[in-house]
Amino acid sequence: MRTGHEVPRERRAVTDGGEPTLTASVVGASGFAGGELCRLLTGHPNFELVQATSREYENKTLGYVHPNLRGVDVRFSSPEDLDSVDVLFASTPHGVSMEHIDAFRDAAGTVVDLSADFRLDEADAYDEWYDGHTAPEHLADAAYALPELGRETLEGADLIASGGCNATATMLALKPLVDSGVITPDDQVVADLKVGSSEGGAGGGAASSHPERSGVVRPYAPTGHRHEAEIQQELGLSLSFTVHAVDMTRGAAATCHAFPSERVTTGDLWGAYREAYDDEPFVRLVAGGGGVYRYPEPKAVAGTNHAEVGFELDPENGRVVAFSAIDNVMKGAAGQAVHAANVALGLDETAGLEFQGLHPVGSP
Amino acid sequence: MRTGHEVPRERRAVTDGGEPTLTASVVGASGFAGGELCRLLTGHPNFELVQATSREYENKTLGYVHPNLRGVDVRFSSPEDLDSVDVLFASTPHGVSMEHIDAFRDAAGTVVDLSADFRLDEADAYDEWYDGHTAPEHLADAAYALPELGRETLEGADLIASGGCNATATMLALKPLVDSGVITPDDQVVADLKVGSSEGGAGGGAASSHPERSGVVRPYAPTGHRHEAEIQQELGLSLSFTVHAVDMTRGAAATCHAFPSERVTTGDLWGAYREAYDDEPFVRLVAGGGGVYRYPEPKAVAGTNHAEVGFELDPENGRVVAFSAIDNVMKGAAGQAVHAANVALGLDETAGLEFQGLHPVGSP
Amino acid sequence: MRTGHEVPRERRAVTDGGEPTLTASVVGASGFAGGELCRLLTGHPNFELVQATSREYENKTLGYVHPNLRGVDVRFSSPEDLDSVDVLFASTPHGVSMEHIDAFRDAAGTVVDLSADFRLDEADAYDEWYDGHTAPEHLADAAYALPELGRETLEGADLIASGGCNATATMLALKPLVDSGVITPDDQVVADLKVGSSEGGAGGGAASSHPERSGVVRPYAPTGHRHEAEIQQELGLSLSFTVHAVDMTRGAAATCHAFPSERVTTGDLWGAYREAYDDEPFVRLVAGGGGVYRYPEPKAVAGTNHAEVGFELDPENGRVVAFSAIDNVMKGAAGQAVHAANVALGLDETAGLEFQGLHPVGSP
Amino acid sequence: MRTGHEVPRERRAVTDGGEPTLTASVVGASGFAGGELCRLLTGHPNFELVQATSREYENKTLGYVHPNLRGVDVRFSSPEDLDSVDVLFASTPHGVSMEHIDAFRDAAGTVVDLSADFRLDEADAYDEWYDGHTAPEHLADAAYALPELGRETLEGADLIASGGCNATATMLALKPLVDSGVITPDDQVVADLKVGSSEGGAGGGAASSHPERSGVVRPYAPTGHRHEAEIQQELGLSLSFTVHAVDMTRGAAATCHAFPSERVTTGDLWGAYREAYDDEPFVRLVAGGGGVYRYPEPKAVAGTNHAEVGFELDPENGRVVAFSAIDNVMKGAAGQAVHAANVALGLDETAGLEFQGLHPVGSP
Repeated sequence: MRTGHEVPRERRAVTDGGEPTLTASVVGASGFAGGELCRLLTGHPNFELVQATSREYENKTLGYVHPNLRGVDVRFSSPEDLDSVDVLFASTPHGVSMEHIDAFRDAAGTVVDLSADFRLDEADAYDEWYDGHTAPEHLADAAYALPELGRETLEGADLIASGGCNATATMLALKPLVDSGVITPDDQVVADLKVGSSEGGAGGGAASSHPERSGVVRPYAPTGHRHEAEIQQELGLSLSFTVHAVDMTRGAAATCHAFPSERVTTGDLWGAYREAYDDEPFVRLVAGGGGVYRYPEPKAVAGTNHAEVGFELDPENGRVVAFSAIDNVMKGAAGQAVHAANVALGLDETAGLEFQGLHPVGSP
Repeated sequence: MRTGHEVPRERRAVTDGGEPTLTASVVGASGFAGGELCRLLTGHPNFELVQATSREYENKTLGYVHPNLRGVDVRFSSPEDLDSVDVLFASTPHGVSMEHIDAFRDAAGTVVDLSADFRLDEADAYDEWYDGHTAPEHLADAAYALPELGRETLEGADLIASGGCNATATMLALKPLVDSGVITPDDQVVADLKVGSSEGGAGGGAASSHPERSGVVRPYAPTGHRHEAEIQQELGLSLSFTVHAVDMTRGAAATCHAFPSERVTTGDLWGAYREAYDDEPFVRLVAGGGGVYRYPEPKAVAGTNHAEVGFELDPENGRVVAFSAIDNVMKGAAGQAVHAANVALGLDETAGLEFQGLHPVGSP
Repeated sequence: MRTGHEVPRERRAVTDGGEPTLTASVVGASGFAGGELCRLLTGHPNFELVQATSREYENKTLGYVHPNLRGVDVRFSSPEDLDSVDVLFASTPHGVSMEHIDAFRDAAGTVVDLSADFRLDEADAYDEWYDGHTAPEHLADAAYALPELGRETLEGADLIASGGCNATATMLALKPLVDSGVITPDDQVVADLKVGSSEGGAGGGAASSHPERSGVVRPYAPTGHRHEAEIQQELGLSLSFTVHAVDMTRGAAATCHAFPSERVTTGDLWGAYREAYDDEPFVRLVAGGGGVYRYPEPKAVAGTNHAEVGFELDPENGRVVAFSAIDNVMKGAAGQAVHAANVALGLDETAGLEFQGLHPVGSP
Repeated sequence: MRTGHEVPRERRAVTDGGEPTLTASVVGASGFAGGELCRLLTGHPNFELVQATSREYENKTLGYVHPNLRGVDVRFSSPEDLDSVDVLFASTPHGVSMEHIDAFRDAAGTVVDLSADFRLDEADAYDEWYDGHTAPEHLADAAYALPELGRETLEGADLIASGGCNATATMLALKPLVDSGVITPDDQVVADLKVGSSEGGAGGGAASSHPERSGVVRPYAPTGHRHEAEIQQELGLSLSFTVHAVDMTRGAAATCHAFPSERVTTGDLWGAYREAYDDEPFVRLVAGGGGVYRYPEPKAVAGTNHAEVGFELDPENGRVVAFSAIDNVMKGAAGQAVHAANVALGLDETAGLEFQGLHPVGSP
């Protein structure tokens, strides 16, 4: 994993005398994260979307696939012929980016990859959790992007591996406990996730068809979810990880049951979470209080790059129940990628990511 | 109903040398439309939200009720003590605005009322469709706001009655047919609407509780829906109007079955709809074509101020099936109100209303 | 269309001295209606399910596909090798039954077909609404089954064409108006339907995937829906028919806007509906009254063979708004087929169809 | 807690020469569990429903509140005037049964209480988990009813405390691990539950209104859920218990993360679960395998008295992930109560509880 360096002058957004503009492209633009990237980039003050690729929908408008983008005058083009741009966002299935990474890096000074292909530091880890890696020589260049874990490696990075949705939700809940020492690698931690159907991607199979998928509480990864690998790498925790599909389209909620070896107080926890997140523009602490929304909920952040994080202390046994909620397509994918690009290129971190979300919102 | 006049110099947004800023307040800010107004105003380049009232939640933060606004540093204040502002948005139940209209107009040069209280020109019509009107002397001042019906009366208006959600959806579907003469007042028109649970407002009763309300197709206004009154006034049509509750939170979809006395062609219809809407920033024509989203759908506009409008011609009997879809909280309430204020005050029409919506989105 | 005749002695259920038992098979048992048929037949006092076919799932248990049937000890078998049974239910896509009808009738004295293949009397009508018919010589034998339209042709029938789901919903709403003369063939009638995702069948395509399908109000057949053909044949009405997909799995709700040429009273309507349905075991009249459920709703009949039917008179223009709600998989398919078989074979009409449904129920 | 004794002759269902019939009443019949009890009892071969009480809906038909019961000719009566019956089911909020228990027991030889009032053996435990108990003298008489934990105390019981929904789901998942010694009281066990909106009861408050409640993943009891008390009493486990509201109406799914002190194999687990449940008529083991439904899901048992139970072994750390899914209104309330009454009165255990559920079903 690369260490941060200064943003090269020629790749920095021009900041004198007005709005800097960088060209951007999206590879794999017909998927859900790809569509969201197109939306964010066309609304971003510093990016101009110049290419959006899709083999299946070549020459169709973006709005043909993404109805919310009907007003955007861009058509899908072939991924065979990549434009030269400042930033290329790759939003393709696992294994595709590692195959095309040379072309991606030739086309763009900064590549942000949303797949798992460059998230792990070691090629061996791919053999264990995924298939063998075909471009391991790029792994050392790649900066893992969950900006709340640290910006240093992101600033000026030219290859960014945007973190996985479920890993993001889980790490945001646990990071303050790890940083503050409340939880150590030997402590028992269970992460029980509930996620929306967009995690299955556009198209989906029989299990994703509406009659089968609606209204479910379905254990889809009881054990062995691949995102464990990046959590272990980034937080140093080996946790017990189980993911359930529930009835929403967007959203990932992590409930982490952590058993500190030493008792803590609610005050300790407030301290740890405030220390971790008080300066974070995209993290809100929500822990108890009144009203309807007393803990983190995916609904409250649907459509946004925000995460809600909160906790409760179990007086019976000292368990810390840490919650987080994100929109998996945004904070768990496209928003995180844009956030990382903003950091990498020296832009305002929140540029293009200001949407505050909706109330009420149904199934996000 | 007043006719338009020029925006008085002192009420126009300052446009020379930077971002003009006007002060704004929201009366009834704890409701769904009120919360959405707060969101739009805090993100609007030309407005500063200086007051948001709620009797029930006085002194609580906006985020206590509207979780998406947790980052906004504004607290509800009492409606008894109104700040002097440039624009006051009133988002209160039917009957409240007419009671307080003098106070509202004293507090603000421009009042935008989202209730039905000032939508009808004639006090008699209130007696028929609602209860008796208690402030009929203001009716002549009020400009009805569905901007797509015409901006003339809105420019410079100081009392604006923002159109009803279901009326808005219906009129957007039918206006091109009326304007082009395809439909005349004697023709049979059925409007069959499907709407989300937010139309029942925050709180709701037994019928709005989740176990009873989820998954419904429920005829809630088979006949006699009050929005017929404003449709009749604005379009000159007496139509057959039936509203159903369906399982979404936001959204209103109108399917209008119109029977022209003379046969038309699909080309005629394209002509009529393009003529009506080609220059409209918030209306998209969606009529057939390929892909999944071939006709207007609330999902495609959820969270936005956009309306989708489309049609199909029934070759069997010449029936025109005209569709429209809006987000009832936005284009049907808060977005429409801000749009109208933008027009009234000489601002950019789309200011603060640029959000493009999401794909995918669950139950909007 | 055949006229009724007496049930041949050898095909009648034995009724002396105990529970009669007939053997039954389901062709196309892996689909939604096929699975429901298996459930109904295994719980039916007079039927024994001896074969359930599925090419794709041959040798798998029924429970592999239909989780509610995990306790049923039956495996799918090949449709190539049909057992000889008393009753064969065919639940296959359009066009399959006409291809295999000779084999079906060889295998069983009574064939109940759930597809559209034998619903229309005239081969010409298939050319118009579907593709050409390949076994038109069987059309004259087939009895159309919406039992509420009349049992005469069903009693003793050996080929039964079970009515379509959307046609069933629509005809149940309108039949009392036609029978009583309130509506005549020249009167304007609009039928606006809202249906669940199970109508798209198991598997489904991109439009049926959960992220795209959830929360929709989607016009999927604005005009030209094929069920118009059977409505025209059975009720003699040419109506304006539009079908929308909404967010439920099961259910079809018809809202019919009928414009009688002569004014009627609410009392006339009560008379017409009571006359039509007072003796029907599966039809409930629901028209106004108090409480949450004041008109027909699919939720209220989910999982059952019941239909709810109701109406409202529009005092403004004399329009009759007639509602009906069914479970499309039950009253619109499997339940209707079993009901028809019960009638055809001289069994108790309600045998095996007694389930009363649930309250509350989410999205049915 | 009482021990079982033989069913007194005069309270046994008559089983010679035909269908035995016992009279039954439901106190609190307008609630969700109360309505379900009415449905089950009217369809039960051995019970006759003679009274259903509701203060609020006195003299209304059952169908006024429960639309699925529109065909049932019973009206709510006052709870002040209880009929003398064989079995009284009390389905009232916590605290009501303890207040009226003398009247209930005077009215009926067998009382089945669905509230928490008689679930705990010790009055002290009520002081800790609930409020103080006002009728502690009945506690020793009460048999706790989760029949899968043992029938001995239920047979002939005259006061039955039907187990809580979330406790039922959790205990069904864990009982085989406890019985087989895989888990001992010192082992770490986390139970993470996902439940439907019917658990909030009919009516509900602001948090239950459809716009706020739909699409949620909402931690509603992070710690301190009262059902822990009965789990501790019945299984001897002090577990970490957290309950989330998700978007379904019916259903409770428990995911239990258990950490045995000694490693077990998948074979051990199959042995433990088969030993526990192979003879249970209402428990299905679902653990892996193919198809869409590979683990327990509430959808698969919606509307039924069945529970699905399954497990997975985490090869990384020896964790046992034990799943269960029930319909909280049925197996978690009304079905469990009828099941217990069947056992108590010597009836066929499954009588009246044969419904197999539906496929597909939306949000159950």
